[in-house]
Amino acid sequence: MSILRGNAVVGQSGGPTAAINATLAGVIRGALRAREAGAIDVLYGMRNGIEGFLREDLVNLFERFDCEENLSVLEATPAAALGSCRRKLKSHEADAETYAEILRILKKNNIRYFFYIGGNDSMDTVNKLSEYAASNDYELRVVGVPKTIDNDLMATDHTPGFGSAAKFVATTFKEILRDVSVYTMKAVTIVEVMGRDAGWLTTSAALPVLSGGMGPDLIYLPERAFDVDKFIADIEAAFTRHPAVLVAVSEGIRLADGSYVGAGIGGKTDAFGHVQLSGAGKVLEGVVKERLGCKVRSIELNLPQRCASHIASLTDITESVNAGAGAVTAALDGKSGVMMTIERLPGGEYKTRIGCTPVSSVANEVKTVPADYINAEGNGVTEACLNYLAPLIVGELDIKYENGLPKHIII
Amino acid sequence: MSILRGNAVVGQSGGPTAAINATLAGVIRGALRAREAGAIDVLYGMRNGIEGFLREDLVNLFERFDCEENLSVLEATPAAALGSCRRKLKSHEADAETYAEILRILKKNNIRYFFYIGGNDSMDTVNKLSEYAASNDYELRVVGVPKTIDNDLMATDHTPGFGSAAKFVATTFKEILRDVSVYTMKAVTIVEVMGRDAGWLTTSAALPVLSGGMGPDLIYLPERAFDVDKFIADIEAAFTRHPAVLVAVSEGIRLADGSYVGAGIGGKTDAFGHVQLSGAGKVLEGVVKERLGCKVRSIELNLPQRCASHIASLTDITESVNAGAGAVTAALDGKSGVMMTIERLPGGEYKTRIGCTPVSSVANEVKTVPADYINAEGNGVTEACLNYLAPLIVGELDIKYENGLPKHIII
Repeated sequence: MSILRGNAVVGQSGGPTAAINATLAGVIRGALRAREAGAIDVLYGMRNGIEGFLREDLVNLFERFDCEENLSVLEATPAAALGSCRRKLKSHEADAETYAEILRILKKNNIRYFFYIGGNDSMDTVNKLSEYAASNDYELRVVGVPKTIDNDLMATDHTPGFGSAAKFVATTFKEILRDVSVYTMKAVTIVEVMGRDAGWLTTSAALPVLSGGMGPDLIYLPERAFDVDKFIADIEAAFTRHPAVLVAVSEGIRLADGSYVGAGIGGKTDAFGHVQLSGAGKVLEGVVKERLGCKVRSIELNLPQRCASHIASLTDITESVNAGAGAVTAALDGKSGVMMTIERLPGGEYKTRIGCTPVSSVANEVKTVPADYINAEGNGVTEACLNYLAPLIVGELDIKYENGLPKHIII
Repeated sequence: MSILRGNAVVGQSGGPTAAINATLAGVIRGALRAREAGAIDVLYGMRNGIEGFLREDLVNLFERFDCEENLSVLEATPAAALGSCRRKLKSHEADAETYAEILRILKKNNIRYFFYIGGNDSMDTVNKLSEYAASNDYELRVVGVPKTIDNDLMATDHTPGFGSAAKFVATTFKEILRDVSVYTMKAVTIVEVMGRDAGWLTTSAALPVLSGGMGPDLIYLPERAFDVDKFIADIEAAFTRHPAVLVAVSEGIRLADGSYVGAGIGGKTDAFGHVQLSGAGKVLEGVVKERLGCKVRSIELNLPQRCASHIASLTDITESVNAGAGAVTAALDGKSGVMMTIERLPGGEYKTRIGCTPVSSVANEVKTVPADYINAEGNGVTEACLNYLAPLIVGELDIKYENGLPKHIII
């Protein structure tokens, strides 16, 4: 196969994670090798994803990352160093003008490789661009690299970004467990973890049991209908074991009628009379106070879940880099309209391989926590779940500190 | 001076921090040396502070910490490994029975050294016990070691535990800043930091400006009356510079009339009709939504501020160990009724010395952020403040990991 020679562009889209820049670094590393091989002349970064591309806001990444140190700091920088966007492309029939503009910019800059790091919507963009370029006889290789702390994508064993979020969540639960265990008074602590439709990240709260034997007493996921009476009974049972009860809940837990617990059980208005989405943890804090009358506190882990790079998983960051570099290899191999995947190889020892799959086969489907990962009572996880999760949080980055704070790079 | 020979006891009291176990490790290290010198035969740990002491729930710490590795893991274990309590002793006139019981247990176990690690209430206990023993002709050396993430104690340059909390807060702000900066849409992010009466911990949100040049746009402390109109004007001014505005607020910010912002501006009730203390950040989130109509999010950093040992400050942990070891030295020197302090030595380079001061001189006073550490507009900190804070977060512990999670020790 003859080499397709030209320029390349990479963008980031959707919500940030601690690993999306590691994937960017992987694309840069792969592209630097492709430059040696005579395939890629310049790798551009588009600012704010496809939005910035349409403004032709491109930055030469080969110039910006001319040394190993910058790449290594980029791998430990949270969020999207190129900026992000939430824009979802319409079909080219519905928005011919935007597609024509994209094609014009691609041709003008002789861009033949298009890498897009993001979630479901971004993979949809990959699919549409790949098809559009082909139908317009413009040779373009479009490759997507997934990222999400939600771990809810099909066709990949897990998603880049999940392991680091899981390591932050598990570490924080382990530390909170120590904190809440110091008193002899009965108290309930409810920690709300991100995850609207899939409870993957919340399952990682259980990981401390593998190192020290203790973890949260109760774990509730969106995959099971939430029952308030059962929840209170579960807490009362836990109190027979020890005074400090620690509970993990997904933000997306729902009652049997499908309504979100976080939307308020019984309705709730703010100072201005608006219905307030206060979060599942906050709502359950009120329920415990009302029903059990004991000390209760709720904690929403919030944004740090997706940006706490200082406690990133080395396994996750390494795989995220490899998925980025693998995207370049796949594109050089002639692939387009594909999403990179992580395959877990069979055998006792944890090993993975970077693969890829047609984007059209994964778009808009959600992978939830399977039934055999959730205990019979629906308030905890199984050993199979722990076995799946455990290797994903292993290892620590060699974080560079400056004045006591982790060093970040800004593009 | 002849050596006072006998046993020693140590306890922890009040809210946990990431450094209170480092101080415990320091007391153990100091007591091990005192054993060599023939002064301390056994060091006991009392579980749950004075509560456990009164139950005679004592554990032999020399047996538990017979190797360097355990001590080093203890230094990186958050919260109070011996457990804690909130009990404040009454005067011995008001509660003669409890004091008699304490004296009985002291005599029975031949305890001559009493170390108590805690906040203001614990220092009060140190004072009362020291006076009571003296007035009963029982030779007892009672030494307190302070700890608080609030940094609000008099007579010490800063408190053990503050530097680690500040490093967590500053790191988290730096990471959140990267996260919120990825979009081009106007958005306000309000982060609430612990601190009811003193804004010290909130000032540490500004530290990222020293490594990378960027920090939160606005910082509000309890030391200044909070004005809602000024707050909105401050945000509008920040929007002229960039679309993502990051705000740090102390939980304890108050309106000019002295009422807490976190108690709700205009009143607010939960699902059951109770007035809800939703937190300053949450209340201001509602205010921004109402007044500016832009995207807004509030984040409460919550318990991780005081237990995130994985990102502890080496400076803080080292000083906390030294304060613990120094307490033993002070007691051997004949001191009693004193609290250990950290003195910052004059000169350009950051250097400290462990000292001590009579507990009676510090009890029940609060050290707030001085006027020259707050900018004229009352919405940020000065260079003098940054210079004070900067050295306190420097350095990282060599954290031991097990299955991807920081190792803790449980006593």
